[in-house]
Amino acid sequence: MGEKREWLEELKRELPEGRLLTSREDRVAYSYDATWEEGWPDAVVLAHATEDVVATLRVAQKYRVPVVPRGAASGLSGGSVPEHGGISLSLAPMRRIIEISPEDLVAVVQPGVINLDLQKALEPHGLFYPPDPASYDMSTIGGNIAENAGGPRCLKYGVTTDYVMGLEVVIPGGEVLRLGGRSIKNVTGYDLVRLFVGSEGTLGVVTEATLKLLPKPPATATVSAFFDNLNVAAETVVAVLTSGILPLTTELLDGVSIRVVEDFLHLGLPAGAEAMLLIAVEGETGCVKEEIARVEGICRTHGASTVETAATPEEESRLWRARRSVAAALGRLRPHTLGEDIAVPRSRIPEMVRTIQEIGERWGVTIAVYGHIGDGNLHPTIACDRNDPDEMDRVSKAAEEIFAAAVRMGGTLSGEHGIGTVKRAFLPSALPNNVLDMMKAVKQIFDPHGIMNPGKVFPD
Amino acid sequence: MGEKREWLEELKRELPEGRLLTSREDRVAYSYDATWEEGWPDAVVLAHATEDVVATLRVAQKYRVPVVPRGAASGLSGGSVPEHGGISLSLAPMRRIIEISPEDLVAVVQPGVINLDLQKALEPHGLFYPPDPASYDMSTIGGNIAENAGGPRCLKYGVTTDYVMGLEVVIPGGEVLRLGGRSIKNVTGYDLVRLFVGSEGTLGVVTEATLKLLPKPPATATVSAFFDNLNVAAETVVAVLTSGILPLTTELLDGVSIRVVEDFLHLGLPAGAEAMLLIAVEGETGCVKEEIARVEGICRTHGASTVETAATPEEESRLWRARRSVAAALGRLRPHTLGEDIAVPRSRIPEMVRTIQEIGERWGVTIAVYGHIGDGNLHPTIACDRNDPDEMDRVSKAAEEIFAAAVRMGGTLSGEHGIGTVKRAFLPSALPNNVLDMMKAVKQIFDPHGIMNPGKVFPD
Repeated sequence: MGEKREWLEELKRELPEGRLLTSREDRVAYSYDATWEEGWPDAVVLAHATEDVVATLRVAQKYRVPVVPRGAASGLSGGSVPEHGGISLSLAPMRRIIEISPEDLVAVVQPGVINLDLQKALEPHGLFYPPDPASYDMSTIGGNIAENAGGPRCLKYGVTTDYVMGLEVVIPGGEVLRLGGRSIKNVTGYDLVRLFVGSEGTLGVVTEATLKLLPKPPATATVSAFFDNLNVAAETVVAVLTSGILPLTTELLDGVSIRVVEDFLHLGLPAGAEAMLLIAVEGETGCVKEEIARVEGICRTHGASTVETAATPEEESRLWRARRSVAAALGRLRPHTLGEDIAVPRSRIPEMVRTIQEIGERWGVTIAVYGHIGDGNLHPTIACDRNDPDEMDRVSKAAEEIFAAAVRMGGTLSGEHGIGTVKRAFLPSALPNNVLDMMKAVKQIFDPHGIMNPGKVFPD
Repeated sequence: MGEKREWLEELKRELPEGRLLTSREDRVAYSYDATWEEGWPDAVVLAHATEDVVATLRVAQKYRVPVVPRGAASGLSGGSVPEHGGISLSLAPMRRIIEISPEDLVAVVQPGVINLDLQKALEPHGLFYPPDPASYDMSTIGGNIAENAGGPRCLKYGVTTDYVMGLEVVIPGGEVLRLGGRSIKNVTGYDLVRLFVGSEGTLGVVTEATLKLLPKPPATATVSAFFDNLNVAAETVVAVLTSGILPLTTELLDGVSIRVVEDFLHLGLPAGAEAMLLIAVEGETGCVKEEIARVEGICRTHGASTVETAATPEEESRLWRARRSVAAALGRLRPHTLGEDIAVPRSRIPEMVRTIQEIGERWGVTIAVYGHIGDGNLHPTIACDRNDPDEMDRVSKAAEEIFAAAVRMGGTLSGEHGIGTVKRAFLPSALPNNVLDMMKAVKQIFDPHGIMNPGKVFPD
């Protein structure tokens, strides 16, 4: 990193008034995300336009200063934490929805647009943008793109990368690349758009995104069902999926999750249940009725103990209460929770849940498992106390064993939260060395001096 | 390229008996694809296993011999034509479906598996693989991946890249890379899988693919509707898409297409019609009824002159007859047809069709326009005689003007056929120079000596 005073002065000259922050208060405010990671930037740039990003990446390249892009900092993998100092580049001020085209089913947005704000803007047009990370009411589209965010309804609709048609990105040195376009089909050259999606800010900075939209179906309904046996619940999901129905979501709560929620909320959940499924469908009104009746039937045939259907938003909200309350319920047991994010092939879900339960018992920690069973993405959540070093040691051992088990079962370290800093040490266990080398070579093309979000994704 | 005798001898030693062909007959048989391009290979390798591909790419790298991968050679952009000689590497013998997992909604296949054969194997499981290029009864999954193939039902389901979860690829030198995996959500490192999809064999050779499958909905139905005015037809499609319905397909025939088909088949198509729409929906039986009634209603409200619905496979087949017969009907006018493949944002479709008609008139050639209006992908097809040099000169001028117009309207040179050799000269008009440079740098990583399908995609 060049002499700090020098690059700060040059950056100050390049940026409009008020966009460069260097006070202690500002630096601490940009030092964390939604993990427990922390790192102070030397300065903060508030980007209001592509030009601000260009100026920042030009000066940063010249002086070899790390640049850490940041949306809402709601990330769960340390991706926006300025571990090596340098510049925290906030895209949050770039929150303009530039265009919504119902004809083209396309939205063009700046990276700081909050996912929920886009959804609200699309509603009057009868349209929606499918990716729905749990953080959708605060996370930004730019952050969603950086992490290739998923969410519950990704079972039916896919993840962020399936909805990014075009990008404007700025790469180190300040060059602006316009990738992809706004036509749905496009096979002109390599797919650099999708190379940037999920690259966690290590290749460049997204300054504009062209997103694919879908017509919003008019109706939804949800079935909840309880099972004495996790295997049977998993078989039920497969039976639904192979019956010609593609549900909107298929969410699972394991026995631990059910019991901590019941202790907390007294919802009357069945005491001995080892699995709860929440299966939602979406479509035309008549279609939803037909599909939900079939889902109910499949659940009953497979021996579900309690099967309930909700067809109004209020009833649905009641059924989803258990799912939404797991983390809060765990928070009653211990002061903190560590939420993980593994994915395994769907067929391995019962084995994976059992393995996680064994790991929890072995290390003496409570782990609730819930998540998106339909796409194999589970969020094992460990109750803990960060102020107890002995417990935290056991928690990280348990987490490591969970990662290892996921990889062993043909799964991955991260389904939707990214690698960032929190999982980079495990990347070599998930990827062959020659693939990792290719990824590093790709980074080298766009970021030859390693200034873009250094230390993220790749192990030291 | 090294001394031919030398590399041929080494290759022969490396490969099992019968996998290296060098006779004149064999070389001519591997000299073309479905375009008018032609180029003889020096030798043909029939790959029966990944090891054959490894041996080929090891020897080819050592002697700097071009390698041109080939599936069924049904491509429409010259991608598998050995323009610079070298080795035609046929993956057609690798046609094993390795695994179908209904639990994981995944199929693992070798690259030579024909798209239709995979569909047939999936049927008993109630599953399907969505990408459906027109060549699906002959083209291979490997070829579909190389070209990022689309098809009519891509409006609802997306294109090939949306269904490739994992790849085994061999890169020059013979190294085997295992990219991606079999979990639906996966954010560990850069998305190299999608970098390979659509790379037209210029980065390496796909030797195995893990594909995402979907449950097959039980019912379909199709509405056909005629319009006096192309704009109104386009508006009708937008009205359908913004009504909450995502059709399976929305196909368009322009006035020229309608008239050549009618002259040929006497189906009783309305004489003055300027547009025919075929809108199909797919889902649960009740749902399909409900949706198709709404589609019919929207067509009538917009003033369609004849609205007909088909709900049985036989009736559907009758309605689709006009769409399927355009090329054959054009073939009655002139001995040959040149099929193009542009894509524009949906809102520009009427303007694009009118522009194409003007271009046809200006150059004195008949151009029928049909294609996938819902995703903006049109196939303007020019009737011509390849033995008439003056006419062919006018045909290629017309084609160039069509490309230029598509790019001007924010579209692309190719929606689903690829660039190959036939469109490479136009790539610089469709992509900014700095993006093209980045693509070349990416190629350099995987193929530093430029032996993989040289001359394809990139302009000379």
